[in-house]
Amino acid sequence: MNPALHPLDDALALTEAGPGRYRARTSPAYWNMVGPFGGITAAALLQAVMQHPQRLGDPLSLTVNYAGAIAEGEFTVQAEPVRTNRSTQHWTLSVLQPGAAGEPVVTTTATAVTAVRRETWSLPDTPMPEVTGPEGLERILRGMPVKWLDRYDLRPMTGALPSRWDGGGDSSLSQLWMRDEPPRPLDFCALAALSDVFFPRVWLRRARQVPAGTVSLTVYFHAGREQLADSGCGYLLGQARAQEFRNGFFDQTVQLWNQGGTMLASSHQIVYYKE
Amino acid sequence: MNPALHPLDDALALTEAGPGRYRARTSPAYWNMVGPFGGITAAALLQAVMQHPQRLGDPLSLTVNYAGAIAEGEFTVQAEPVRTNRSTQHWTLSVLQPGAAGEPVVTTTATAVTAVRRETWSLPDTPMPEVTGPEGLERILRGMPVKWLDRYDLRPMTGALPSRWDGGGDSSLSQLWMRDEPPRPLDFCALAALSDVFFPRVWLRRARQVPAGTVSLTVYFHAGREQLADSGCGYLLGQARAQEFRNGFFDQTVQLWNQGGTMLASSHQIVYYKE
Repeated sequence: MNPALHPLDDALALTEAGPGRYRARTSPAYWNMVGPFGGITAAALLQAVMQHPQRLGDPLSLTVNYAGAIAEGEFTVQAEPVRTNRSTQHWTLSVLQPGAAGEPVVTTTATAVTAVRRETWSLPDTPMPEVTGPEGLERILRGMPVKWLDRYDLRPMTGALPSRWDGGGDSSLSQLWMRDEPPRPLDFCALAALSDVFFPRVWLRRARQVPAGTVSLTVYFHAGREQLADSGCGYLLGQARAQEFRNGFFDQTVQLWNQGGTMLASSHQIVYYKE
Repeated sequence: MNPALHPLDDALALTEAGPGRYRARTSPAYWNMVGPFGGITAAALLQAVMQHPQRLGDPLSLTVNYAGAIAEGEFTVQAEPVRTNRSTQHWTLSVLQPGAAGEPVVTTTATAVTAVRRETWSLPDTPMPEVTGPEGLERILRGMPVKWLDRYDLRPMTGALPSRWDGGGDSSLSQLWMRDEPPRPLDFCALAALSDVFFPRVWLRRARQVPAGTVSLTVYFHAGREQLADSGCGYLLGQARAQEFRNGFFDQTVQLWNQGGTMLASSHQIVYYKE
């Protein structure tokens, strides 16, 4: 670890190891239970795109499929721009680690699209919910067993982690203010990671803690560099809810707005749960 | 074309041309303006997964990135199961066509996850809207210049194509009953295609017809084989809306229920628009 860097920048420090190949290390600061926080893996994949010398434009969409846990230590990110058009570029991505016999094993697959955006007619069609600001709200506890939670300042308004696991849940909706901890100017990678900070909807809806993990995550970036700069180190309002829980998998829809009410990203994931 | 087959089965007739390589032809019956209907391309990619001898389980998620138009004629679908776990399998997919010098050009990239599903606690968290049935509703006109529309029986309740392009739109919400034409028992590929039948939200919200096209589409399959069988040849209720229109791209969220009110799929896409 490099203590001179923000933990997010330290976690996303990629070293070029050949054309479209980047070497990285898992970060203890973003450790989840049996692997890295899914959001940091999404951010690392996007970071490879951001660093790639052939990149055209800025992130428009990112889909990450969590095929297997990433083990502690080194990993390789592969990023290939498989098709470049006039204003969009299509990426195929993966995370690799050595397997038992040293052979490369895919832990994560992904695709991304980057685009050169032009100013057009624009319209927010899902306004930010009317909520109180983050200032008066309590931050969720630090020092939880899951390390990555300390890397975020999370202030729930609606749908906080149940205080009693009594099976009495009645909604899957969470609304919370969030930002990196320590505060850090927002960029595309940080935004990708923030789209994954919500605890499993099944815990909330059932008020029951069952094993759960994201299988596939998609982020659509509505923000360009201007909106990121406007957001600065401020809080984002995140809203998450499930639509369907069925036979081991539920989906989650997410919206993220900055404090000025601009939607920066919308996101979706499908999540495994047990029982 | 094989007239003995349903047009969808004809469009999805893939011939194995090597391990994980499938040869197919574009179908005039599903032609859009400058290439195939996006939904049929998604279905063809999924069909390669369905036919692959190493497939584990049924479709759980599918993400398709439309990198370039597919030209009329032959194309190749590549499907590789890059990681197989105990109950989930991760796929990397692409569509290729010969370029100007005969070299393979990627027109479409995709990833998919298949899974063996087990019965668990389940809960619908977004009930089907209360709407009238399809019987009394008018079917949209046949014989439109866009051929693929004839392959669907589409019956809008809310958010039909504007009758006047006067810039006076006020909502991006559409609700319509839909099924294959002629009727055909629902399967995963048909469901994937149906998630993409909605015309561009920007046309509805602005009551203005501007060039638009899907860049990336994700489908989450909540239905297992039992729910597909229950759906049979019946109509599905489809609901689509946009969340944000910004500088050339908008997102669309979609839910599909069968007539019994069971959510079969949720879907999302990010769509390019001009002006």
